[in-house]
Amino acid sequence: MSHKAAYNVAVVGATGAVGQKIIKLLEEKKFPIDQVKLLSSSRSAGKKISFNGEEVTVEEALPESFAGVDIALFSAGGSISKKLAPEAVKHGAVVVDNTSAYRMDKDVPLVVPEVNKEDLSNHKGIIANPNCSTIQMVAALKPLQKAFGLSRVIVSTYQAVSGAGMTANKELENQTASHLNKEEMHAEILPVKGDKKHYPIAFNALPQIDVFQENGYTFEEMKMINETKKIMHAPELSVAATCVRLPIFTSHAESVYVELNRDDLTAADIQKVLNEAEGVILEDNPETQTYPTPLSAANREEVFVGRVRKDPDLANGFHMWIVSDNLMKGAAWNTVQIAETLVENKWL
Amino acid sequence: MSHKAAYNVAVVGATGAVGQKIIKLLEEKKFPIDQVKLLSSSRSAGKKISFNGEEVTVEEALPESFAGVDIALFSAGGSISKKLAPEAVKHGAVVVDNTSAYRMDKDVPLVVPEVNKEDLSNHKGIIANPNCSTIQMVAALKPLQKAFGLSRVIVSTYQAVSGAGMTANKELENQTASHLNKEEMHAEILPVKGDKKHYPIAFNALPQIDVFQENGYTFEEMKMINETKKIMHAPELSVAATCVRLPIFTSHAESVYVELNRDDLTAADIQKVLNEAEGVILEDNPETQTYPTPLSAANREEVFVGRVRKDPDLANGFHMWIVSDNLMKGAAWNTVQIAETLVENKWL
Repeated sequence: MSHKAAYNVAVVGATGAVGQKIIKLLEEKKFPIDQVKLLSSSRSAGKKISFNGEEVTVEEALPESFAGVDIALFSAGGSISKKLAPEAVKHGAVVVDNTSAYRMDKDVPLVVPEVNKEDLSNHKGIIANPNCSTIQMVAALKPLQKAFGLSRVIVSTYQAVSGAGMTANKELENQTASHLNKEEMHAEILPVKGDKKHYPIAFNALPQIDVFQENGYTFEEMKMINETKKIMHAPELSVAATCVRLPIFTSHAESVYVELNRDDLTAADIQKVLNEAEGVILEDNPETQTYPTPLSAANREEVFVGRVRKDPDLANGFHMWIVSDNLMKGAAWNTVQIAETLVENKWL
Repeated sequence: MSHKAAYNVAVVGATGAVGQKIIKLLEEKKFPIDQVKLLSSSRSAGKKISFNGEEVTVEEALPESFAGVDIALFSAGGSISKKLAPEAVKHGAVVVDNTSAYRMDKDVPLVVPEVNKEDLSNHKGIIANPNCSTIQMVAALKPLQKAFGLSRVIVSTYQAVSGAGMTANKELENQTASHLNKEEMHAEILPVKGDKKHYPIAFNALPQIDVFQENGYTFEEMKMINETKKIMHAPELSVAATCVRLPIFTSHAESVYVELNRDDLTAADIQKVLNEAEGVILEDNPETQTYPTPLSAANREEVFVGRVRKDPDLANGFHMWIVSDNLMKGAAWNTVQIAETLVENKWL
C-alpha cells in the first residue's frame, strides 16, 4: 500500500468494551482517517455510534465489508478474527488483531510499540496485539532487559473483570449488590464464560483466567509465558506466571519478581531506568505512600510502576508492582498505537 | 505449673474480631476450662458475652487481672501485649500472644503447631502466634521442606481487609455501597490506620499492608520473611514477599513459588505430600476447576492448597495457591491450638 494522507479504517467489534475505546482513541489521537467503518455481529448491526461528530451506522462484519479498507482493527473474539482477518488481508487491508488467534504464529509480528516496533516492518498483513497482562509487563521489563540483561521473571497477577467483557462487569456489580443485601450471589460467567463451573467473584479471588491447558496452567498463564518470550526476543528467558481474577472493574496489577544479569545494582538503578522508559511512569516513594493502584491507573494510557525493592537474600533479584488499564494500554491503546506506528513509519 | 484437669483462661481483647473467634473456638473445642476471664479496654468493659451457656461480663484488662490465671490469650494489639503480657507471666500465667510484639524475640517460641510444636517445650512464659499470612504459608511449606528440602520461596499475597480489624470491614462495605450508588468513596482507615495517606480499597488493590520500613519493604512483608525463617528453623532459606490488600472480607490467598532441593519431582509428588500433611487440605484438579478461593475457605480451620504446577523452565521450581481464613488458622484457631498443644503435652 502506498503512503496516504488519510486511511479507510474498519473497527471490528465496534460495540464491545475494547471496540468503543478504540473508536474514542482514534478520535482523540486525530488518527488520519478518510472513512471509518464500524463492524459488529449481526446482532449489534444497525446501532448508531458517533465518530468525529457524525453518526455512523454499525454494519454486520462480512468478508466483503473490507473492500477499500486500509487498516482493520479487530477486537471481536478469536473465532471472528480467524474467519475474517484473512478476508480483510485479501482485500488489501492491514489487520491489527486484538485476540489470541494469531499471536504465536511465526509469520505474525506480536508488538508492543515501545518494546519491539521494528517487528512491524516485515508483517504479512496481520499484526497481533498481545494479551493485556503481557503488554504492561513487557513495557516495564524491556528497558531493564536492555540496560542490565534479564534472565528470569516470576509474576503473579491481580486482574480486573473487564478483561472478561462487559457481562463480567455486570456480574461483579450484581453479586456485590446481592452480598451487601445479604442475598445469595449468582455466578454464571466468571471465571470463564462457557467453562463447566462458575464461582462468585465479588469479595473473592479466582485463580483461573481462561481455560486450563493439559499442563495444569491456564491459557492466560501460558499467554504470559509464551508472548513475553516472543515480544522480548528472548526464547531463553525463564518466565513463570500465576494469573488471578479479582473483584476490580478496571486495571490489571502485577507483582513481578525479576532476576537481572548483574548483581551490583540497587533499587535506585532500576528506578532510574524505569523513570526514563517510554510509556512508563514511575510512582514509587514509600515515604509518601506513593505507588500505583488499579483505581489510580484507570483511564490512563501509560504503564505505572512502583514498589521497586531489592531482594534482601539475592543480589540480582528485584520486586516491582506494575499497574495499567487493561482496556487501554492492555488493549485499545496498544492497538491504535500499532496503527499509528505503521502509518508514521510507512510500514503499511 | 502442674498439670490440671481444667484451667483458668483469660482472653485479652475479648470484644475484637479475633477475640470473639477465640471464645467461640474455646467452646467448640471443649477446651478444659475452669474459669474464663474476658478482658478488654476500659471502653468495652461491662459488655456481656455468652460463654458455655453463661453470661460473662467483660472486665478492663489491668495488671492485677491475671491473678489466678493459668493461660492468657492476648489479641488486643501490640502495645497492650507489651504492657500486660509480662504482668500475666509474673502472676504465673502462660501467655499466647497474637500480636507482633514478641515474635522475633530470641527467647519467645513462634509456633504453628503442625510445623514446630516442639518449640513450645522450652518457653519462658510467652509464646507468640505468627502473622496470619505467615501461618498459612509455613503450614503448606513445612511438609515440602521435610520431604524434599526447600531453598527458596517467592510469595505474592492476596489479603482480606478483616486482617486490619472490624473497622476495615466496615470501610470496605461503605465504599462498595458508595461506588455502586455512583457516590464518592471515603477512605480513612486502609491501607494502614494512622498512616499518612488513605486510599479506597473497594474495587481496588493496595500494595501496602502495615507501615513501610527503611528498606522499602512493608512491615507485613518483613514479618513474612523473618517469621518464616524462624518458624521453619531455616535462617538460610531465601524468602521474598510482596503483600497486597484486596476488597475481600475473609481469607488470605497466596501465590507461592518455591524451589526445592530436588529436580526430579513432578507436581504429583508435591500433591501427594500436601495431601497427607496435617492441617492441610489439597483442593487441586484443573479438569473439574477445583481450587480453593477466599470464599470457599472462610470459617474453616484448615489451610487449603491448589494450582500445584511445575515451572516449565526450571526443574526444581513449583507454583501453588494457598488459601486460609485469616481470622481462624491465621489467628484465633492457631492461638487455641497452641493452648491445646501446651495442655496435651504438659508444657504449661
